[in-house]
Amino acid sequence: MAKSEKTAITPTREQDYPNWYQEVVRAADMAENSPVRGCMVIKPWGYAIWENMVHLMDDLFKETGVKNAYFPLFIPLSYMEKEAEHVEGFAKECAVVTHHRLEPDGKGGLKPAGELAEPLIVRPTSETIIGESMARWTNSYRDLPILINQWANVVRWEMRTRMFLRTSEFLWQEGHTAHATEQEAKERTLLMLDVYTKFVEEYLAMPVIRGQKTPSERFPGADDTTCIEAMMQDKRALQAGTSHFLGQNFAKGSGIKFQNEEGQEAYAWTTSWGSSTRMIGGMIMVHSDDDGLVLPPRVAPAHVVILPIFKKDEDRRAILESARALKDALEARQFHGGKIRVELDDRDIGGARGWEWVKKGVPVRIELGPRDIEKNSVFMARRDQPSSKKESMDREMFINAIPGILDNIQESLFNRAIRYRKENTFVMDDKKQFYDLYQKASGYHNGAFVMAHWCGSDKCEETIKKDLSVTIRCIPFDSPTEKGECICCGNASSRRVLFAKAY
Amino acid sequence: MAKSEKTAITPTREQDYPNWYQEVVRAADMAENSPVRGCMVIKPWGYAIWENMVHLMDDLFKETGVKNAYFPLFIPLSYMEKEAEHVEGFAKECAVVTHHRLEPDGKGGLKPAGELAEPLIVRPTSETIIGESMARWTNSYRDLPILINQWANVVRWEMRTRMFLRTSEFLWQEGHTAHATEQEAKERTLLMLDVYTKFVEEYLAMPVIRGQKTPSERFPGADDTTCIEAMMQDKRALQAGTSHFLGQNFAKGSGIKFQNEEGQEAYAWTTSWGSSTRMIGGMIMVHSDDDGLVLPPRVAPAHVVILPIFKKDEDRRAILESARALKDALEARQFHGGKIRVELDDRDIGGARGWEWVKKGVPVRIELGPRDIEKNSVFMARRDQPSSKKESMDREMFINAIPGILDNIQESLFNRAIRYRKENTFVMDDKKQFYDLYQKASGYHNGAFVMAHWCGSDKCEETIKKDLSVTIRCIPFDSPTEKGECICCGNASSRRVLFAKAY
Repeated sequence: MAKSEKTAITPTREQDYPNWYQEVVRAADMAENSPVRGCMVIKPWGYAIWENMVHLMDDLFKETGVKNAYFPLFIPLSYMEKEAEHVEGFAKECAVVTHHRLEPDGKGGLKPAGELAEPLIVRPTSETIIGESMARWTNSYRDLPILINQWANVVRWEMRTRMFLRTSEFLWQEGHTAHATEQEAKERTLLMLDVYTKFVEEYLAMPVIRGQKTPSERFPGADDTTCIEAMMQDKRALQAGTSHFLGQNFAKGSGIKFQNEEGQEAYAWTTSWGSSTRMIGGMIMVHSDDDGLVLPPRVAPAHVVILPIFKKDEDRRAILESARALKDALEARQFHGGKIRVELDDRDIGGARGWEWVKKGVPVRIELGPRDIEKNSVFMARRDQPSSKKESMDREMFINAIPGILDNIQESLFNRAIRYRKENTFVMDDKKQFYDLYQKASGYHNGAFVMAHWCGSDKCEETIKKDLSVTIRCIPFDSPTEKGECICCGNASSRRVLFAKAY
Repeated sequence: MAKSEKTAITPTREQDYPNWYQEVVRAADMAENSPVRGCMVIKPWGYAIWENMVHLMDDLFKETGVKNAYFPLFIPLSYMEKEAEHVEGFAKECAVVTHHRLEPDGKGGLKPAGELAEPLIVRPTSETIIGESMARWTNSYRDLPILINQWANVVRWEMRTRMFLRTSEFLWQEGHTAHATEQEAKERTLLMLDVYTKFVEEYLAMPVIRGQKTPSERFPGADDTTCIEAMMQDKRALQAGTSHFLGQNFAKGSGIKFQNEEGQEAYAWTTSWGSSTRMIGGMIMVHSDDDGLVLPPRVAPAHVVILPIFKKDEDRRAILESARALKDALEARQFHGGKIRVELDDRDIGGARGWEWVKKGVPVRIELGPRDIEKNSVFMARRDQPSSKKESMDREMFINAIPGILDNIQESLFNRAIRYRKENTFVMDDKKQFYDLYQKASGYHNGAFVMAHWCGSDKCEETIKKDLSVTIRCIPFDSPTEKGECICCGNASSRRVLFAKAY
């Protein structure tokens, strides 16, 4: 985009990436900060995207045999102590319920009353409370596997919050499974990472790198944490889903025991895996531009918006009728097993109307004026192309082509993101070059993905984190075994890992 | 059912209605009490019913123009004080968050730390926090109406809890709307009551009485509360949904102001309306029998369960193949716009298997043995009929008939419940008769619905409540104006109201 061109979002990505992000969210009317510390209000446009994501992901989970259930919001304090690393990981940032009523404070206000014998924690994650249920449900190997998912709100007390990316309360799903064998639990861990990969790549059009977390970045209490990492436009990484192999740690903490086929008592092997409203933040940062939100068609609340253009009052009725007929014709078409979702915006508010829908990220905009009706055509703009680019198209042809156009947009967003990641991913062996890159990085040019060797020591990982705020995002599954020297200490290394600054 | 007949549920309804209820829930594997005070675990079978209900209701809401959004779980203490009656109504039973981390207590455990400057209440309902948002969103009459719904968990600290019926945490939807005129808000209040009526009668097969609450039974802070009331099999009433006209009370508390068409500042008129997992408890108590859960087909997680009967090992493969083919054929059929949901249970565990599905309430059970395959027939049992009654049916005929059979079961459950309510509803004018009825009532025979005159005084309402634990459930909309004398004090009354013991 030429420098002089006017953009719908101020600041632009180049000018101030973090504020551009907030402004995209605001301009699309997706969410807003609430007066409750760290909590956001998800507005209808943002929530409709989440609803689409939930339905699509839920189907993918169910295809693997997972069933939904619901567990208590509150976790007794003593449960948090069942798994040592786990409590260590979550104790620092949790909401604690200590009272169960309010009473007059004598100054015209209210104060907490009815102190609880045991404080309750608002769930930051549910391993311990679900573990308690699983322990009750598991007697014999015939009761396994247990494959459970829960859609829920969770709370982690965050000091610095950003809408969707990091909020004290967020919406998520957490899957929890228990298995008779280690092998089966490990397979499930990877199966669910596959599901996340499919969802994020095919539905959110975000390419991801799949890999394993280093020990220091693991989920508190896990034996192994796998993840998918995506590159944002400021070249930072965002974790878009994690799947944990918990070994027997939580099974031992919660007492998930069973009699195996040989008649011996054994502990189950468990997994957990989660993804959250954070993915929405990632999706925004991967696809959106200086005109606002850009939505992948498969999760867009509206696929097409029709904007009737009223030039003269006497045309109004005919144009509106034609627009309604177009809406009906489009809605009769299918896109990936659902109907095409169409908005008809007949407000007479001038140019602001078109920009509103640009900023909301709707994949296809259609203008329909008197001349279009005369010519039996539509005037189409695609959100993956510059807002000034509009194309006249035969109306029938457009109606027939719409599913293909949406597929094409979906694909173009994914390909663009892949290209962008490729352009900003470097293989490096030189420490100075590595340090230079990240020390110069700032704002929109916040670095890059770097594939570099790492000796495996916590110390080198820690040094780089301290020096550069760069972390090992994962040990990619497809990173081949090769001889090399650690980018930090120069010691022998057998594999490159993915370094980046992260959200 | 004859006295000597064996039932799947012990105790029976007659023997001990409250324990029968708990046992039905347990035997269907729907939910269980959790170790967290007052909170339950909703297990997959129970949650699948809720999921069906959510999807169906959500569609009905959206058809009226409502959009979903999400608001914070926590409500600052000061917000609760914004509406005087409201705080009075909810202050006595709420979970209060006072700290935001845990730290070692010096005795090897943990204790709350990081005290909050202002305590947070876990939402018991969201009028105040949503009102705060609406105040920000409303500037001009053009911003109205705002039509919002939220699916969420809420917490009301309950001392005596029963699964689904009354739990400290429960799942619900709460709708909140703001309007420019009183008239429009009142219309919305009734429109949403219509939606609840439709859902509960047509989907849950529960007949309801629609009406207005008396002032003493109103939602705290409402000008008017409307509700739907259903009769359980113990002749007690259960409120299955409420819709409140809030007047300008919350608008004034939260500052929901706008400039009207005349350019003057005015307060909005708001409504709220809610329904919860409690409806599941009602559905259980209306339809289930001494063999366990009975599910209305439109919300059943499975419509049909196929039970292959293996007599000889060599038949096994052929029977299983035939069962799978039947499953496919059934799943290709439609029931109310969705596919027929079929479970195939091929476990070789004898008679317990069939009883499991009876207890889970699946509308249609199919047994398929070697002779059925020979005769090209199926052996069918309907859950709305005695478990011993099974019918052989031509296989093709059954496949064609299944949508009709499910409709017929749905209808028969509704009609049975209507009949039951009619048999147990009395019009009364004599105080002694009224007192006698309720004083003798106990257990399964817990009274009746009584239509009787009421003078309109709080005092009479209170007296009857104190004497008999009987309340005015509602002033039914269809209760005609007629001259009469109050059943309690004998003063003039112009209308009969609905009395009952209630859940």
